Amino acid sequence: MALSLKRWLIGRPIATERQHHERINNLTALAVFSSDALSSVAYASEAILAVLLAGGAAALGLGLPIAGAIALLLLVVGASYRQTIHAYPNGGGAYVVARENLGQLAGLVAAAALLIDYVLTVAVSISAGVAAITSLAGNWGAPWLAHYAVELALVCILLVSLANLRGVKESGTLFAAPTYLFVISILAMIAWGVIGTLLGHVQPVVQPVAPEPQGGAAIGLWLVLRAFAAGCTALTGVEAISNGIPAFKRPESRNAATTLSWMVGILATMFLGITWLANRLHAIPNDLTHETVVSQIARSVFGVGPMYTLIQVATALILILAANTAYADFPRLASLLARDRFLPRQFASRGDRLVFSNGILVLSAVAAGLVIFFRANEIAMLPLYAIGVFLSFTLSQTGMVRHHLRLREPGWRFGLGINGLGAFLTGVVLAVLAVTKFAHGAWAVLLLIPLLVVAFGHIGAHYASVARQLSLTTAVKPRPVRRLTAVVLVSGLHKATLPALMLARALAGDNVMAATVDLDREQTEKIRARWKEWGCDVPLVVIDSPYRSLIVPLLAFIDQIDSHYSDDELLIILPELVPAHWWELFLHNQTGFILRTALMFRKGKTVISVPYRLEA
Amino acid sequence: MALSLKRWLIGRPIATERQHHERINNLTALAVFSSDALSSVAYASEAILAVLLAGGAAALGLGLPIAGAIALLLLVVGASYRQTIHAYPNGGGAYVVARENLGQLAGLVAAAALLIDYVLTVAVSISAGVAAITSLAGNWGAPWLAHYAVELALVCILLVSLANLRGVKESGTLFAAPTYLFVISILAMIAWGVIGTLLGHVQPVVQPVAPEPQGGAAIGLWLVLRAFAAGCTALTGVEAISNGIPAFKRPESRNAATTLSWMVGILATMFLGITWLANRLHAIPNDLTHETVVSQIARSVFGVGPMYTLIQVATALILILAANTAYADFPRLASLLARDRFLPRQFASRGDRLVFSNGILVLSAVAAGLVIFFRANEIAMLPLYAIGVFLSFTLSQTGMVRHHLRLREPGWRFGLGINGLGAFLTGVVLAVLAVTKFAHGAWAVLLLIPLLVVAFGHIGAHYASVARQLSLTTAVKPRPVRRLTAVVLVSGLHKATLPALMLARALAGDNVMAATVDLDREQTEKIRARWKEWGCDVPLVVIDSPYRSLIVPLLAFIDQIDSHYSDDELLIILPELVPAHWWELFLHNQTGFILRTALMFRKGKTVISVPYRLEA
Repeated sequence: MALSLKRWLIGRPIATERQHHERINNLTALAVFSSDALSSVAYASEAILAVLLAGGAAALGLGLPIAGAIALLLLVVGASYRQTIHAYPNGGGAYVVARENLGQLAGLVAAAALLIDYVLTVAVSISAGVAAITSLAGNWGAPWLAHYAVELALVCILLVSLANLRGVKESGTLFAAPTYLFVISILAMIAWGVIGTLLGHVQPVVQPVAPEPQGGAAIGLWLVLRAFAAGCTALTGVEAISNGIPAFKRPESRNAATTLSWMVGILATMFLGITWLANRLHAIPNDLTHETVVSQIARSVFGVGPMYTLIQVATALILILAANTAYADFPRLASLLARDRFLPRQFASRGDRLVFSNGILVLSAVAAGLVIFFRANEIAMLPLYAIGVFLSFTLSQTGMVRHHLRLREPGWRFGLGINGLGAFLTGVVLAVLAVTKFAHGAWAVLLLIPLLVVAFGHIGAHYASVARQLSLTTAVKPRPVRRLTAVVLVSGLHKATLPALMLARALAGDNVMAATVDLDREQTEKIRARWKEWGCDVPLVVIDSPYRSLIVPLLAFIDQIDSHYSDDELLIILPELVPAHWWELFLHNQTGFILRTALMFRKGKTVISVPYRLEA
Repeated sequence: MALSLKRWLIGRPIATERQHHERINNLTALAVFSSDALSSVAYASEAILAVLLAGGAAALGLGLPIAGAIALLLLVVGASYRQTIHAYPNGGGAYVVARENLGQLAGLVAAAALLIDYVLTVAVSISAGVAAITSLAGNWGAPWLAHYAVELALVCILLVSLANLRGVKESGTLFAAPTYLFVISILAMIAWGVIGTLLGHVQPVVQPVAPEPQGGAAIGLWLVLRAFAAGCTALTGVEAISNGIPAFKRPESRNAATTLSWMVGILATMFLGITWLANRLHAIPNDLTHETVVSQIARSVFGVGPMYTLIQVATALILILAANTAYADFPRLASLLARDRFLPRQFASRGDRLVFSNGILVLSAVAAGLVIFFRANEIAMLPLYAIGVFLSFTLSQTGMVRHHLRLREPGWRFGLGINGLGAFLTGVVLAVLAVTKFAHGAWAVLLLIPLLVVAFGHIGAHYASVARQLSLTTAVKPRPVRRLTAVVLVSGLHKATLPALMLARALAGDNVMAATVDLDREQTEKIRARWKEWGCDVPLVVIDSPYRSLIVPLLAFIDQIDSHYSDDELLIILPELVPAHWWELFLHNQTGFILRTALMFRKGKTVISVPYRLEA
């Protein structure tokens, strides 16, 4: 039944041969790889304003220059990643670039940072997508939908993870439609809004509550830096194209670089346009109605009508696609780490449907936890976000600097300059992010990254130790088993006991005994009384247990037997009842399972389970 | 490590011989058995008022006559239970009385009702105890404590369940102190409050919000019946003494009956007194401050000072004791049901510390779930409460009617009259409860009781079927095992594989083969290459798996082998890695576990686990 449910949800298994790669043109690639980066305009401007709001209305004017600085940073990072694309045509993720140029430790730090950020991408994007929908509902007379934001976000995570467990073909049209719908509708909103504002026929948003300056926070460098740090979430996802170069048509690197430039241009335009409109239309984050800034702008520009609805729906869709890219990135990075033995090997194997199922499940579970913890409030999650991205940016660009210095390929001085500037700037921003966001939650990420790196190290050491211990190079030819002794552990004497006793005789001849623990005098007497007739000529030992414990006296008894017959191979035989339905397991003491675990793990004994199947 | 944590929390195991009974005098018995019943005055009056509030200020005056009717009902039920005490001196729980006189089905219905009510006793009493403490804190300047009511209630459940897992000796002093503290302080409050009110120097409670009639609910029969039903929670726990007769000194029945009369008298006095004071002092349930009615009365009578604090603390303590009695009753009833094969047998066995640990754990888990679901609001839980108690009252009294008619012992006519009246009245009240509380949550209890009874029936049928299938009366002497075939399932060829191969040869001679599933071409080639040197002369079979599945092709292969060697006993040998630490298990595919489960459950095969212990 569980299996057919799985089949229905996930689909039938797919054969290994069907794994292949599809090459996509630049227009499709822009859609496939950019949803994460482009969708961040849905919350980045709002994040800046949410910080500036503490400085009162006067501080809100700083939004635009701050957004300008971030746009410049975006151009530098984009140029820097063009270098990576040319240097690593097979895919230049930060883990690979940092490991190859800066060593294993740097690679693992980048990997830890990226894994954390992929989880946050899912939690933030899904929450922001739900906020787009609840804002829409609020303006269409259903403000109560905002109360179900957590539930909606969890349902979205469930659907995206199911789609990925089925194996989403990265089919062009699926991604292209919502991405271009989003880009075109946002650009249209900006164009219409800018013209309308300048001509004066687009009116500012009427806020249900007048914004008051929150006492204490002066307009100082600290506030500006915090707002800048908040806006840097706009850069998340810029690295996506550099991971996916093999999917481009030939010449791959050139096509990828061109696509990257387009993405950076569109992203910068949308980000600056939305920030400008937010400033002119007095759109600010609203804790009461939970209406997003983009929603406020859109309804000011177009009124509550079809265009407004289209923008909100397109925003929600591209945000869900953004979460979906993390579902490709996280399991792939986890599988790379697992193949290098830094994560449990379960992450390295593809499931039925050729996807890395375990990575998908872990990603969904952790993202769902974040959504519940932060009540699906994406603005509250942002202080944790972007730290990982900028750490991986810095490591990746620094790696590229080493790459240029090492290989000195044609044009290396230019590349060195670009990547050096990129590494320096992203490094400085990383420091700004770490300091300004520290108390608001970034400390958790800064603590988690080294913990993950230590865990990677321990896991790697464990696998290396196991490989050493199991290696046949130090093995000696095993001696044949000398003599077998079998002990049958019984809790009663009935039909299920007989096959175990007979098997014991077949395996070990006369070198056999049965043992039972005296937990209940009456039951023990019953066994003893029947043993003569039904005991298959196997002698029975009754073990005392003053504290009604089963395991402790049994293990002591096994030790005793073992020291007595030290030359023999000791076989422990457990008759086990197998009910017809799994739920009936709860109606039987799980002593078989507990005993097997104790005997194998604590004593290293060979255990033989002799099942007796019950009928329904 | 897990073991030493358990030792520290629960204590060292206790030997079976130390199980004994202690006899207690009437004064102590009143404390031990009455905490559940007496503590219900902490919420019963409030429950009546919470319903009447919907009828506006005028309806509140009905509280006292309703409480009077409930007190009369209490006297009848008390008299009725005196009969049960004399008829069943070994303990007359509703399950026993109903089963003996009305048959198995009636017994199981009573048991289901009681199990549900024991869970509710814990959830309601703990929540009400926490409400007493948060009300106290609110009047001492810490109203924020009310926000942590759920957390406080969960901590209390945890502590009570730990205490019970250790095995609380039902020691007189532990119970007597808080119970008598509660009784004396509440009676003092009533005396002082009645005199003070009549003399005019005790002033009514000043409500922070004036009570307004909630529109719609007219003062009609329905409102009166609902208020009456809400107040009937005062009767919960009255049956406790009839369960515990063997704990009394000789003559047990007479002492128990005397104690019951005292309890009924004290309970009726406290209940009527509190209801009268609530009426005169305008104490009403307050949704805003969450202050309990008893707290409002106590601070009006004594002012916020030591006497008020004493009353609140004593109320909290007796409520926790009330929850504690359910920790004795639930596991004991569950163990009786398990011994009669209507519940999983795990409930029937005593743990290390001579207590029924599984019953305690299940009770705690379900009660904690209720506390979380109802946000520790005991008034909201009350509609579910008392249904079970009155169902068990009715069945038990009806059982007593049959008992008198059957045995016709001296004075049976008088007993028949008393029990007949009791059965009739509790039956009528049960109908009132079911109808008036139905929409407020009682439907869940009324649905759950038959579901539990059906589950009891299924469990009983399963155990009966297993006993039939395992019985040796239909067994034939087993034939000796003819010939053994062994299949070693390997995922690699390394040091851990060798002992399994050697054991296979020792067990089945030349009748041995090894099999591996081709999940990864490279790995399979590696095994093949080394097999000649290290394969211990066992032939290797490579099984194809186009969908990368391990289990499905393996089971098909086992089927094939099985049909080929149908006369043989097939042994399946699994080499298993045993890591040095349990957490390292997560670093290895749990294929051994999965395979063993599939082979035993789906194929009924004998499985031999050959462990290879890894070093740290």
